[in-house]
Order: sequence, then C-alpha cells, then structure tokens
Amino acid sequence: MATTTSELITKARAARVAARGLQTVSPERKNAALEAIALALESDQAAVIEANALDLAEGVAAGMNESLLDRLMLDAERLSGMAADVRKVAALPDPIGETFDARTLPNGLRVERRRVPLGVIGAIYESRPNVTVDIAVVCFKSGNAVVLRGGKEAVHSNGALAALVRGALASVGEDPETVQQIVDTDRSVVEEMIKGDDYFDLIIPRGGAALVHYVAKEATVPAITGGIGVVHAFVDATANVENAADIVFNSKVQRPSVCNALDTLLVHSSVAPALLTAVATKLGAAGVELRCDQRALALMGPVDSDLVKPAQPEDFGQEFLALVLSVRVVDSVDEALAHIEEHGSGHTETVLTGDDAVANRFLNEVDAAVVMVNSSTRFNDGAELGLGAEVAISTNKLHARGPMGLRELTSYKWIVRGDGQVRG
Amino acid sequence: MATTTSELITKARAARVAARGLQTVSPERKNAALEAIALALESDQAAVIEANALDLAEGVAAGMNESLLDRLMLDAERLSGMAADVRKVAALPDPIGETFDARTLPNGLRVERRRVPLGVIGAIYESRPNVTVDIAVVCFKSGNAVVLRGGKEAVHSNGALAALVRGALASVGEDPETVQQIVDTDRSVVEEMIKGDDYFDLIIPRGGAALVHYVAKEATVPAITGGIGVVHAFVDATANVENAADIVFNSKVQRPSVCNALDTLLVHSSVAPALLTAVATKLGAAGVELRCDQRALALMGPVDSDLVKPAQPEDFGQEFLALVLSVRVVDSVDEALAHIEEHGSGHTETVLTGDDAVANRFLNEVDAAVVMVNSSTRFNDGAELGLGAEVAISTNKLHARGPMGLRELTSYKWIVRGDGQVRG
Repeated sequence: MATTTSELITKARAARVAARGLQTVSPERKNAALEAIALALESDQAAVIEANALDLAEGVAAGMNESLLDRLMLDAERLSGMAADVRKVAALPDPIGETFDARTLPNGLRVERRRVPLGVIGAIYESRPNVTVDIAVVCFKSGNAVVLRGGKEAVHSNGALAALVRGALASVGEDPETVQQIVDTDRSVVEEMIKGDDYFDLIIPRGGAALVHYVAKEATVPAITGGIGVVHAFVDATANVENAADIVFNSKVQRPSVCNALDTLLVHSSVAPALLTAVATKLGAAGVELRCDQRALALMGPVDSDLVKPAQPEDFGQEFLALVLSVRVVDSVDEALAHIEEHGSGHTETVLTGDDAVANRFLNEVDAAVVMVNSSTRFNDGAELGLGAEVAISTNKLHARGPMGLRELTSYKWIVRGDGQVRG
Repeated sequence: MATTTSELITKARAARVAARGLQTVSPERKNAALEAIALALESDQAAVIEANALDLAEGVAAGMNESLLDRLMLDAERLSGMAADVRKVAALPDPIGETFDARTLPNGLRVERRRVPLGVIGAIYESRPNVTVDIAVVCFKSGNAVVLRGGKEAVHSNGALAALVRGALASVGEDPETVQQIVDTDRSVVEEMIKGDDYFDLIIPRGGAALVHYVAKEATVPAITGGIGVVHAFVDATANVENAADIVFNSKVQRPSVCNALDTLLVHSSVAPALLTAVATKLGAAGVELRCDQRALALMGPVDSDLVKPAQPEDFGQEFLALVLSVRVVDSVDEALAHIEEHGSGHTETVLTGDDAVANRFLNEVDAAVVMVNSSTRFNDGAELGLGAEVAISTNKLHARGPMGLRELTSYKWIVRGDGQVRG
C-alpha cells in the first residue's frame, strides 16, 4: 500500500515528466482534448454521479447542512453545465507560444519574449467538485501539468471527475499523466505540496482563510494566494441613490457566500439619510443583517431590531460570507479611503459616485486587485471580466493580480537570434 | 543608539509611508529627480570619493585582492559613468499608469489593467557600489520605494551614494524617504528583511550563490532570485567554425566573473576536431583553463598541460566565474539537450548552428530564462537586450524571468468603470 509520501511524490513526478511533453502540444490538439472532456462530461455521467452519491451520503451522515450538500451535489444538468464551461475554455485563445516585445536591436540581434507554461501546478482546494474540472482544463490549455488535491468531503466525486478527464485525454492520444489527483485527504499532503520545490512551479490554494494564511506563511514553493475579500462599497455624496442601492444590494445579496460579496458599506453623510433608508428596505427584505455604526443607526429610523444592530469594532475588516453587512457613515472621501486602507484585504473595492474626480481618486488611491466605479463588486470574476475562465482571484501583487485565467498560468522565455554577434 | 532591529524597521516604515506618495508622482517629476541625481554624481563627487577611500583602505588592510579593490574603486570618471547610466533610465518610458487589455464588455463595463508600483522593494547586494545608484533610480522611476542593504566592503561608499541620491531628491522637492540605506552590515539584517512581510513587497537578492540560496529557502516575503548562471554553448554539427569559436571566446572571456559568462562548451563530434583546435588556440592565448572530457582531450592535439586538463564530474554543472571552461563532446542534439537539462541553471543557453531545425528545437526545448542562437551569452543583460537598465536577472518563472527592468518592478490593478451594472 502506498504511503502518504509516495502518493504525492509518485504523482508529482509523473506530472513533471508529462509536463515536458505537454509544452509542445499544439492548440488544436489541446482543444480537441478539451472537447473530449466535454463530451465525456455529457455522456459518461454514471460513474461520477455514483461517486457523488457516496460523498453526499457521507455528508448527510456527518450532519452537513443543506447549503453545503447542495454545493457538493452533481447531477446530469450540472455535469452538462461543466461541459459547457470546458468548451468556453477551448474557445479561448491559446497563450502558449504567443510572442511579445519583439524587436531587432541595433547590432542585428532579434529579441522577443515567448510565453511558455509554468510547468507543474499544485492546486489545493476545498470547494465544489466542479473545481476539479475547471482547474484541470485551464491548466491543460495553458500547457501545465497539474496535481489536484481537493477536499475530503468531495473525494469520491473528485476522483471520478479526474478519472473522467484522464480517460478523455487518453482517448484522443494525449498523456493522462498531465492531470494527477491526490486521493489522500490527510492534511500532511498539503504540507508536502507547499514544500515540494523539486516538483511544483506554483501552488494555488483555493479555500478558506485558514488554508490561505497557512500556505502564505509556510509555502516554499511560489504560491499565489487570494480569495479573502473584505470588500467595501463607498457611496459618495454625488451618488445616484437608486442606482447605488441597487449596486449595494446586488453586491451583498446576489451570492453572499463568495469572496467578492460586499462586507462593508461606507456612505457619505450628506447622502446617508436617503441611501440608508433605501438600502435598509431592500436588504431587510432579503434578510440581510446590518451592523451599523452609531450615525448609521441613528439614520435608520424605525427598524427590525433583529436585522439592524449596533456594529462592534470587529465588524469592520471582516469577511462575512453571509447575509451580514457592516455600515459606517463618513464625512469625506478621505475618510472612506482611510477606512479601506485600514480594513480592506486588497481584493475588490467599489465607489458609487456621480463625480469623476472622486471616481479617479478612488481608482488611483485604493490599493486593491480590482477597483470599480458604479458597478457591483460581484463582477470581480474571471468570466465576468472577460478572461473566460479563472483558477483563482489573486490578492498578491507579484505575477498575477485579480482574476487568473490562462495567461496568468504562464511564464515566458527570452528568445535571442543572432548571426554571430559578440559583445564588445 | 539604534539597535539592529530598529534601523531596519524604522527605515522600512519610512519607505512604506513614502511609497504611498511616490505612486502619484508624474513621469516628468520623476525624470527631473533623476536628472538631479545625475548632476549630483557629476558635481558633488568629493564626499563619495572620500567615503570610498575609507572602504578601499579597509579593503587593503583586510588583504582584498587587486581585482576586488578595482571593483570597489570610485573615481571621477566612474561617477560620471554612473550619471550617464542614470540619464539612460530617465530616457526610458515610464511604465506606471500604462494601461493594457482594455475592453468594453457586452454589459457596458469598461475594463482595463493599469500598471502600478509594487510598493517597497528590499535590495540585498554584495556587488560594487554603483549598484546602490542603479537600483535606487530604477526603483524610483518605477514608483517603488527601496531599502538598500549593500555589502560590508562598500558600506561607506554606499552610504555616501545613498546620501547623494537622497539629497538630490530633496533638492527638487521629492521625498528622500523613498530611498533608504541600511548602515548595519550584520547578517541578521538580511534575515529581518526577508521575513519582513509587513514592510516589503519584494526582495531582490543580488550576490553569490550562498545569498541567493539562503533567500530562496528562507524568505517569506516574495523574492525574485537569480544570478546563478551555469551557462552552456552547444556547437552543432552545422555551425560555422570560425563564428562559433568567436562566440565561445566572447562568451567566456569578455567578462568571466559574471553570471552570463560561459561555463561549459558542448560540441558535436562531427565538428569537434576543427572547433576544438580553433577554440583551444584562442582561449589558450587568453589564459583560459579547459577541463575536457576524454573525447575532447583526445582531439585537442598537443596542448599546454597547465591549461588543458581532464574534466572531473563536478566540472559540469558548475558556475566558474573565472577563466575556466569545461568541454564535452556529444554525438547529437538530444545529448546536448539532455546535458543542459541535467546541468543548466535556467539562466542563459546558446546554440551555434547553421540548421534552423536545430535552432528551433533548442529554442523550444531548452528551459531557461534566455535561449539564444548564434550569439554570445554575454548579451543576457537588461541594457543589451533593450530594457535600458536592469536590477537583476531572474531565473524564476513567476512574475519576471530574465533581465528585470522597470516594467518588471510593477504590478497592475484592474480598473472597472460602470454606470450602474449589477450581476444577473
């Protein structure tokens, strides 16, 4: 029986060997392989659904709540949806081999940079099983081998999906070893991965704050971390109240459990009475709990005290991932900017304003991966921002910031062509 | 008296505050500041030369060799050369504020990515004192504050140069706190820097293998490492012998003490007799020691046994930084590629060939920051490859690979402008 160590290392080594071959696979072959994966997701569903039933049964037995069980569940419709997502990745331009910064130097040297794959990516995730396919296809299309280490709660589903992907690759003559899935769900595997400098070129942790902080602190392999969004909307004095209320509502309610959902509303005092009334009504109807500073509380008027409460200091700078919003009244753009600088996590920040000067100050001065004007924070997403797919949303500044798609999983090499040049 | 801890932390904090202001300094103001630095290097030389005399005297007392003393020495001519280099950086395009990937999405959102500074860069170096000015001006122009920690042997010179730079910044109304220099030369400062996540956005170590390996292993701040070049030239069967011998000579001899100097010559057996004869003559005249495998040795003919020796296994995969070259005869492109894969450090590799198919295989399959055809490895340099300046040569794959100039010291943020868009 394989030990913990040997499963990871065996598979990581296999991935490294396979990565070499994958570097030179043509865009056409890669897209044909993605189509094979999409077809398998549509036509070979039985094994996946069966494996998923095991995860669901274990989830029920472990007392998992409805919402988590729903996230875990796979059925024919969801698998077909995943197939559609795979085809979207196939339709994206292939970044590998793209050249940029080409120039001919005065000495005749022809210089360019050419995009190349990173090599082997280690993905650590705790999310829904569709992430297995999402990450596998984005890595494959960007020419990278991948070692997938999903969460315990979806281990059977992840295994069946990885087997489906590997089978589809093999069916069209591609190397299934480019996609590896780790069965062992022991935490020690994560530690092995993030210290596996000999095997991995990049680690991407997707999961809760505990995982992200752990990887950021302990990884010796380069890791791009993100996914923690303490997200603010600042409603400026000149904002259109109705518009602003709609955006605040959408940012908070459209999908409260994710990293780009709104956490804190900052509102300029001059617009606060009208805005807070409008917002409280809309959010209250959706069951959102408002944790308000004293000034906001005073402006709320008569409210349902179950849903409107005084804020505690820790309600600012917190990622709620739930129908909770902290609210603070400020007297100036400066005060809003200072609040965001102190409490933001550099993920997503939006300003709602009718004043271009305020918009530009916000865009210039807020230090976050995605800064927005008059739009919902929920748009910080690779598909929504035009990348077509994403493997993560980075809050790092190095290499990739914000949504990471195909190009963000590449490196480049410098190509220099001469005809005998030497340096003088 | 300041303790070790407080000098670094005090200065890093000052840099962080100053970095915020530097983000919005216009290109014109930045270039004016660089011109002030250049002028000071030309006209205020006395204090620097005086400080340099202290370093030189300490170097002599410590028994430093001629070559190191020469690297350390600053005089009027060298300072004027540094001024010229500063003006070259001023003449480069400013990367900050540059936008890319701009598009309008179907829902009307206008999306773009905008280049922004990284923030605070920590530079650890052991090199010549001109590095103090090189790094300071590249960081300033790219909108980054910098904390400079140079080597003990140049501490007086580095201090005088940093004071000159800071004075010049102040003289044109820019914040001198954007450039910090650490006086303390204790090794513990390096450890503090590379674990200073609260203060630094990037660490750049420039120095010997020991420093680079230490930083790569221990840093918790993102670090871009490089500078270790185990550099190969492969002379293919179809190479022009005279051309190839010139390139090998230039790659080895033009400046043997640096990372892009040639370490190992691989030569195809069919061209080896002619090539090795030509190379041995040229290199021998320059005093280069050749460490040859058995086949190369047999082909050398009558040689000076002081300069031509049998290679030991450790002579392959070694960075010599001296007038030493290891030589191996191979029978195929595959054998050369396998040798480079096993022994290369991913820095600079060149192929000398008359066959486009071989050139393309080499460019495609060799995994290195800079891969070259028919040109000297000495061209792997920011200035030579058109970047105008460099702070380091990265052998990392993430963020920046190869020579790092202004753009490689930036991040980006996503800018999203809407007029009320919400996500459906």
